[in-house]
Amino acid sequence: MNLYSPIEWTFDIFPEQHKYLTFLKKVFRYEFRKNWFRRITPPLLEKKELIEKSQLNTPFIIENGDFDLCQSPSLSILRAYLENDMKEQIQPVYYYYMSQYYKKTKENIRAMQVFGWEIIWENDPILDAISIYVVYTSLNKIWLKDKFFIRINSIWIEKEKVKYREELLSFYENKKHILSQDSIDLLDIDPMLVLSSKNEDEIILNSSAPSLSAKFLKKDSKEHYSKFKSYLDILKVPYKEDHSLVWEHNFQTNSIWQFVSLDSRVIWNGSRYNSLSKNIWEPKEIPATWFYVDTSIIIDLLIENNIKIKNKDKIDLFFVQLWDEAKSVVLPLSLAAREAGINTVVSLWTPSMKEQMLKAGRSWARYVVMVWIMEARNGIFQVRDMNNWTQSEVKKENLIDFMTEKIGKENLDFYSPERDLMIN
Amino acid sequence: MNLYSPIEWTFDIFPEQHKYLTFLKKVFRYEFRKNWFRRITPPLLEKKELIEKSQLNTPFIIENGDFDLCQSPSLSILRAYLENDMKEQIQPVYYYYMSQYYKKTKENIRAMQVFGWEIIWENDPILDAISIYVVYTSLNKIWLKDKFFIRINSIWIEKEKVKYREELLSFYENKKHILSQDSIDLLDIDPMLVLSSKNEDEIILNSSAPSLSAKFLKKDSKEHYSKFKSYLDILKVPYKEDHSLVWEHNFQTNSIWQFVSLDSRVIWNGSRYNSLSKNIWEPKEIPATWFYVDTSIIIDLLIENNIKIKNKDKIDLFFVQLWDEAKSVVLPLSLAAREAGINTVVSLWTPSMKEQMLKAGRSWARYVVMVWIMEARNGIFQVRDMNNWTQSEVKKENLIDFMTEKIGKENLDFYSPERDLMIN
Repeated sequence: MNLYSPIEWTFDIFPEQHKYLTFLKKVFRYEFRKNWFRRITPPLLEKKELIEKSQLNTPFIIENGDFDLCQSPSLSILRAYLENDMKEQIQPVYYYYMSQYYKKTKENIRAMQVFGWEIIWENDPILDAISIYVVYTSLNKIWLKDKFFIRINSIWIEKEKVKYREELLSFYENKKHILSQDSIDLLDIDPMLVLSSKNEDEIILNSSAPSLSAKFLKKDSKEHYSKFKSYLDILKVPYKEDHSLVWEHNFQTNSIWQFVSLDSRVIWNGSRYNSLSKNIWEPKEIPATWFYVDTSIIIDLLIENNIKIKNKDKIDLFFVQLWDEAKSVVLPLSLAAREAGINTVVSLWTPSMKEQMLKAGRSWARYVVMVWIMEARNGIFQVRDMNNWTQSEVKKENLIDFMTEKIGKENLDFYSPERDLMIN
Repeated sequence: MNLYSPIEWTFDIFPEQHKYLTFLKKVFRYEFRKNWFRRITPPLLEKKELIEKSQLNTPFIIENGDFDLCQSPSLSILRAYLENDMKEQIQPVYYYYMSQYYKKTKENIRAMQVFGWEIIWENDPILDAISIYVVYTSLNKIWLKDKFFIRINSIWIEKEKVKYREELLSFYENKKHILSQDSIDLLDIDPMLVLSSKNEDEIILNSSAPSLSAKFLKKDSKEHYSKFKSYLDILKVPYKEDHSLVWEHNFQTNSIWQFVSLDSRVIWNGSRYNSLSKNIWEPKEIPATWFYVDTSIIIDLLIENNIKIKNKDKIDLFFVQLWDEAKSVVLPLSLAAREAGINTVVSLWTPSMKEQMLKAGRSWARYVVMVWIMEARNGIFQVRDMNNWTQSEVKKENLIDFMTEKIGKENLDFYSPERDLMIN
């Protein structure tokens, strides 16, 4: 075991990936805000009792505590809704989050950087359609049009499926020799889960399985699904109906959808989960809808399709300096340059000028200034343009003006917090 | 136990607090970027073996796994540095992070939303001074000038303290009857920790304790501390030397600092930690410096000082509608309005117009449009200005132009991802 590698199912997000993640955050924050969503950040740990009641996945089990890593933001956000008596607010409430999460299944654990949203206390399928529309147009806007498709289905409501499950069970009963052990195990949990098998024999078998036909379904559910589809049509969102798209948790209801890349990676998952509240908060059902995306798959798609993000981390000015006296001059000057919007780096401690120049080159800084004892004392600098290796002589007190003119006022990196503050 | 409250030492960050957090992120992201920092997000879980070797705090102990909740971003980032052989990059490396973290001490656990940075492979105290400068000016910029002060100290390096500790131990030896049980326990860990006691009797006792005088210290350490202070002077950062400011971990070395509110809440902690690498990666020392801030304390200070953030979440246009036919008209129109930069909300499902109007009022929307069957069919809307209760008649196809003129082009909320993408 290499002690310095992260745990195999976790990862470090390095600056190169952060460029993409920051971009995606900007894109989706904007879309979320426009759709009346407000940001919430739930804790990553929740009470063990709450997690158990929710019937979520296998818990992590943290010793010596009543708490555990929560694997579903939906659970935390619904908990916050109940705790804070949010029925007092305008309904439905619209929340989004952007967080690190851990998901544990029977087989493995996975760390994820996710964006998601929750709309609580509203059953209208228009919200499910808008969820899809927002993500669909966002992905189009970032040049991923035609790189994915959308699958939808209805998983109806729990009590409609009781009779259907019985019918399915008797269908599989005398065909167990064809089923894989995984599918036989699934029969005990829910025979409907076998319908989504990827096993070739089972795909053939499933094509003759009884389908969840109209006779099992109530009017409300049918209407919910047909409205869901009609709103997608109004919004001109293309989709495929796929009845093999099923649920992970018993509390999911009605609409379910998935964004899938052309080579079948799942970009986006969403559904209604009207029944979660019944697990944790008997006996009431609270209509709610959610989705979340594992951002790493969108980032992979951007990279694979050679879609690049502009680099904001350019260095305008690099100070090469030797000796303490030079440093006392360069230090306040570099900070003043930064304040003026010029991205400035000071090379430190490295003993040789040659090595510092090499650093300056590798940093892709546009301008380099060398400050030795002489330059520190007489305040006259040679400013080298690294694009064409020309040099200009500039007085210390004129350096910021000189740089501002060279890089252009419009290219300065400038932000003042006063812009976002209110004077009382 | 209330099942719906978060675990007592965790919290939900609700939209109202997120307004402040988003603002702080913007302020510090800008400062970090200007100072050549790049963002990194380490996982929250690390290998148990690594955490144990690091000699960090009490572990969480997650059952059935070789992993555990990591309580120090510094450890994860140094691990990433070692794993990725970052000596190949330009040194030092500058990383910042903005994450949720959990800190467990002997007494309690605390969830924190933290900002921090790490500078690895550089011993120059100029970096410690710049760290302080950046945070000092940032807090000044957000109107918190004079709401805090800065304490600094040197905790020197480990091998210089061996002889001093012996001297301290013999000083306390025959005074144990004055010491509290906590302090007696600390004597076993490190007698220097007793010096930071807040107990009144012990403060008096400590005033006569031997001090870490020059005779114990090597030239390098003394120079490091005096340079640290002289750079702060050059940068015009006010500070108080405070020898009761000590460390939490045995791997901290040399400079240590703290930003403290006037009523003694710790806003910001930072230090060098040159010896952490020796704990996890014998036998080499890797010079490094870090700080992090628990953002909740800055947010508290902003709120206490009545500093308000501008609200970007205003609603420009609110559609009140009844019946499916109205919805089919309103839905595409509302999305087109959003695309045009107009923050638009559609009221859903609520059966009565009166209740919907109430919602519109509570949302503080500026303009409200009511669409019933008639309006849906003839495409002529009454647009009500909620500020002065005047009404204008507007045709459906002119609504976006009308709204754009009313709220002003400069007030549209508009972002296009194309701005940040590069065409190859």
